[in-house]
This record gives sequence, C-alpha cells and structure tokens, in this order.
Amino acid sequence: MWSLPPSDSVLHFLSLVALAAQGMTAALAAGRRSMDWLGVCFLGCITALGGGTLRDLFLGHYPLAWVQNPIYLAITGGAAFVTILIARLVHRLNLAFIVLDAIGLVVFTMAGCDVAWQMDASLPIVIVSGMITGCAGGVLRDVLCNDVPLLFRSELYASVSVVTGLFYATAFGLKLNSEVWTVLTFVLGVSFRLLAVRYKWEMPKFVFTGDER
Amino acid sequence: MWSLPPSDSVLHFLSLVALAAQGMTAALAAGRRSMDWLGVCFLGCITALGGGTLRDLFLGHYPLAWVQNPIYLAITGGAAFVTILIARLVHRLNLAFIVLDAIGLVVFTMAGCDVAWQMDASLPIVIVSGMITGCAGGVLRDVLCNDVPLLFRSELYASVSVVTGLFYATAFGLKLNSEVWTVLTFVLGVSFRLLAVRYKWEMPKFVFTGDER
Amino acid sequence: MWSLPPSDSVLHFLSLVALAAQGMTAALAAGRRSMDWLGVCFLGCITALGGGTLRDLFLGHYPLAWVQNPIYLAITGGAAFVTILIARLVHRLNLAFIVLDAIGLVVFTMAGCDVAWQMDASLPIVIVSGMITGCAGGVLRDVLCNDVPLLFRSELYASVSVVTGLFYATAFGLKLNSEVWTVLTFVLGVSFRLLAVRYKWEMPKFVFTGDER
Repeated sequence: MWSLPPSDSVLHFLSLVALAAQGMTAALAAGRRSMDWLGVCFLGCITALGGGTLRDLFLGHYPLAWVQNPIYLAITGGAAFVTILIARLVHRLNLAFIVLDAIGLVVFTMAGCDVAWQMDASLPIVIVSGMITGCAGGVLRDVLCNDVPLLFRSELYASVSVVTGLFYATAFGLKLNSEVWTVLTFVLGVSFRLLAVRYKWEMPKFVFTGDER
Repeated sequence: MWSLPPSDSVLHFLSLVALAAQGMTAALAAGRRSMDWLGVCFLGCITALGGGTLRDLFLGHYPLAWVQNPIYLAITGGAAFVTILIARLVHRLNLAFIVLDAIGLVVFTMAGCDVAWQMDASLPIVIVSGMITGCAGGVLRDVLCNDVPLLFRSELYASVSVVTGLFYATAFGLKLNSEVWTVLTFVLGVSFRLLAVRYKWEMPKFVFTGDER
Repeated sequence: MWSLPPSDSVLHFLSLVALAAQGMTAALAAGRRSMDWLGVCFLGCITALGGGTLRDLFLGHYPLAWVQNPIYLAITGGAAFVTILIARLVHRLNLAFIVLDAIGLVVFTMAGCDVAWQMDASLPIVIVSGMITGCAGGVLRDVLCNDVPLLFRSELYASVSVVTGLFYATAFGLKLNSEVWTVLTFVLGVSFRLLAVRYKWEMPKFVFTGDER
C-alpha cells in the first residue's frame, strides 16, 4: 500500500483512495456507537492504518508508514471527519464503497506482500504479511467497537486476501514480468471479492455448542 | 513521563504519582468486573503503562520504559493492589483522582512529545506521540473490560491531550525557554481538563442509525 | 517455547504439542461464536502464538518466532482446523486438554524466561517475560471473542506462570545445574496448575460496586 514503489503510481493512487474509503466506512461504524467527532477520526485512522502498522511491528519494519508520512493520518482522519457531514450520502453510496473496499483489500494485500518480500521473508510470511495488511485493520475496528470481528464470521474477505497474496507471490517466485502480473492479480482479487459479495459466497461456519469448560 | 530528563524532577515526581493514580482508577474498573487480585494488578499496569508502551513500539524506541525500569510495574501494580484494600476510600476521593488523572494526562502527553522529539520525529508525529502516550492506556483498559472505549465517547480527554501537545510542541519549534514553557503547558492542560470535567464540556457526537450493511 | 535450545529436545517437543493443544482449545472457543473456518484457524494461531509475539515485540526480539519458522503457523492453524472435524472428540477429551494446557503454560513460561534472560534482562523482566509468553495468548483470544479475559477472573493461571517463572529464574541466579532445575520447575508448575484445577483453587476476587464515575 503506502510502501509501493513510486513508479507504480496507479496502485499508489488507488491505495490513497482506499485509505480514505476505509476511513469513511469505519466512521459509519463509529456513528453506530455514537462516538464523538475525535473518536470517529481515531477509529478511521486505526482501521485504515492498523493493518500496515501491525505488519510493520511484526516484521520489525521501521519507521512505520504513517510515522514517515503523517499525511496518511490526515487522509484517513479527514475522510472519517467528512463522513460525519455526509453520512447519509456515504450510506447511500453503498455500492461504491463495496467496490472501493474491495480495491483497498487487494491493493493493501499486494503492498503487504511487497514489504515482506523486500525484507527477504519466506513465501508463507509474504502471504501472511499481505493478509495482515489487508485484513487486520478491520479486526481492530471491530474490537474497538466491542464486536466479535466480522472478519472471522462473514463473507469471503480474508480468503480473498489469501488468494490474492498466493497469486501475487507466485510471480515473485517465478520472476515474471511484474507489471503484467500486478494488473492480473489486481483484477483477479477485486473480481473475486465482488463476486463473493454479490453471490453471498461464504465459508462454512464452525458452530460448536458444547458447554464452556 | 518516565522518559523525562532527571533534571525535570518535579515533572518526574508528578508522573510517578500519576502512574499510581492511573493504576488505582483502573483497579476500580477491574473491581466492577469482579476480576481477581492478580487481574486487578495486571489491569493497573496495562492501563498506566500501555500508552507509553504503544508509543515506544510505534516509534521503535527500545528498550521500553518498564523493561528498563521494572520499578514502574511495581508502582502501578502495587497501587492497584492497595486499591483493593481501600476501594471505598479511593471511590470517595473521587475529586482527588480527577485531579490526579488530569495531571497524569498532561504529564504523560508532554513526556510522549519529548520522546518523539528526541527521535527527530516530525511535528505531527510529536503530537500524535503525546496523544498515544496520554490516552491509549485507557483505551486498552476499556477493551480488556469489554467496553466501547470511553475515550471515543465522553468528555474532552483526547482533545485535552491534542491541545496540550500542540501547545507544548510549539515551544520546540520556537526554541523557547523550555522550563517556562513546560510550566505554562502543564497549567494550561490541567486547567482545560478540569474545566471540561466541571462544566461537562463535550465534543459533538456522531450518531448514525443506518442499517448495518 | 519455540526459542529453546535444540538440546532441550524434550521441552521442544512438548512445546510443539502445547502449541497444537492451544490451537485446538481456541478452535472450540471460536466454534462457540460461530466463526467461519478461516476465522477458526486465525484464532488458533493468535491464541497459541500471541503470547510469544507480544513478548518479542516488548523486548525488541526480532525476528519473531513464527516469522522465522512459519511452520508454527501451520501447526497451530492446522490443529485448529482439525478440531472443526473432531470437535466432539476434543470436547470429550477435556481432561487430556487440561493436562496439555498446563504443560503449555509451564513450557511457554520457561521459554519466555529463557528469551529474556538471553537478552540480559533484569530478574523482574525475566519473570514478566515468562508470564506474558504463557498467558497473553489467552487474553487476546478472549478479547477477540468479545469476553472479559478469563485470565483476570478465574482459577490460578497467571499465578502458576508467576510461580513457575520465579522458581525457574532462581536457578539462573544461583547458576544451578540447569537440566535438573528445568525438570524440577516443569514438575512443580504442572502439578501446581493441575491441583489448582482439581481443587478449584481461586485467587480472591475484588468486587466493587460503586457507581461508574
């Protein structure tokens, strides 16, 4: 995401848009819990930047992206704040946000893979790094909103991240032309996510009702 | 806070008092959830030291304060434990604790700014660092007590931290006499917080009732 | 745990078994919240590896164990997945899992002490490091399942970790024969935990019913 090489300017632009979009949907979640304005901005920042932050902590990848570029805080916090003013509109643009969120998921995942790859991590860690970057922010949002994380319970979200990461990382292994592969991965990941939302694909649930021990 | 230069002995003393005070109020929160004695001490430590710990992780500022000075663990854990014995008294001293908590908020914020400044962080990061140091411990406490963080919903708390940090950091920028400025910031921050509590100043809330998507 | 010297092959083997056991009991907790299959695997990994991860972050001990040996992710995630298929069996083997969990608690605690000791941490930090390694994973599990952490409320669990750490660290201080001492600590810790479960030893609770401020 925020660690993409400058040449990948399209992906970089998409990741900024996705940061804002994640900040805005987090703001709606904050509004459902009647948070105050500053709380809304915090939750926006934590949701949008939390995944990349956790990844950087786990990999020891300093400085953190938002420490180096505080503008990311302004983008996400600002987007969350604007949402307070235009909440109805944001809510009505449901479809647009589903698309933006899918783009964010895929772009963040690819950026997370990039970071791990550049640190010479092994293939499984490259994929896990992508997944943490793409998904962990939403988990933090749900924990702070006092919910069982949606990630663990709903449509294919983490799965999309894993598949995207697997596909993307294969290119590293095969030393393929990265430009083409990046576009392919992007299209595959976003399509997969949107199809999953459209047709309500879900992973089977594990329901266990034994007594608490 | 725990990173103040030794010469600032007054601030250092105040920060130790504030550590104990935060441990004690966290203990009351633990008691409301019927935690056991060790849980009370843990919650005290996490609340009082969590903000500084997160800041240090984000900035890559090792070793952590309590790793270097385990006495901080003893102070906060000990204060939490003592609270078990004198809970009624602590509860009745409500006012004293509001003052101590305000002092803690301001002193921790200033110390957080100091740490970031010494690491040559940019101005926004200096302020964010102060805010995390001052406020994040309470967020961790609320998450562990299974609440939506109070920080995101109640009186001006994070706002006091932001204003304190802004004011304090200005001094760095202007290269003002730091002793005078420190005292000014301290008085401003504590007064702001106490006035906010007294007159129930609140930030507007964002209430959104759209359906969950 | 995963940082034991290779020579301690028995402890190493026990720690792998304990990793799997923690992943499996976490899977049951996930099933009680109807998480999907991937969520079950995530929760298993976070529970089993979270304590060591937090310890490594706090001590600045890079690379993290599971980053260096992604096989740990496979063991814990795989164990959690298998649990989906044999949940009834796992539930019925309650007693076996109590023993495995006790072994895990003690082995993880000793490994956490080892890591801190090798980093020349002070004695209190060695013990805290052991405690975080042994106990923090369960706290993360409970937070993600939206519970007040069991650790703070139930039978002696953290206490066992503290006693084990104290006993184990004494050996470092006294430069005793480490092989004998390791076995002694292991037997002491596991017995203590099992006796606590058997006779429902509990730490006194702090119940406070004052009004929220």
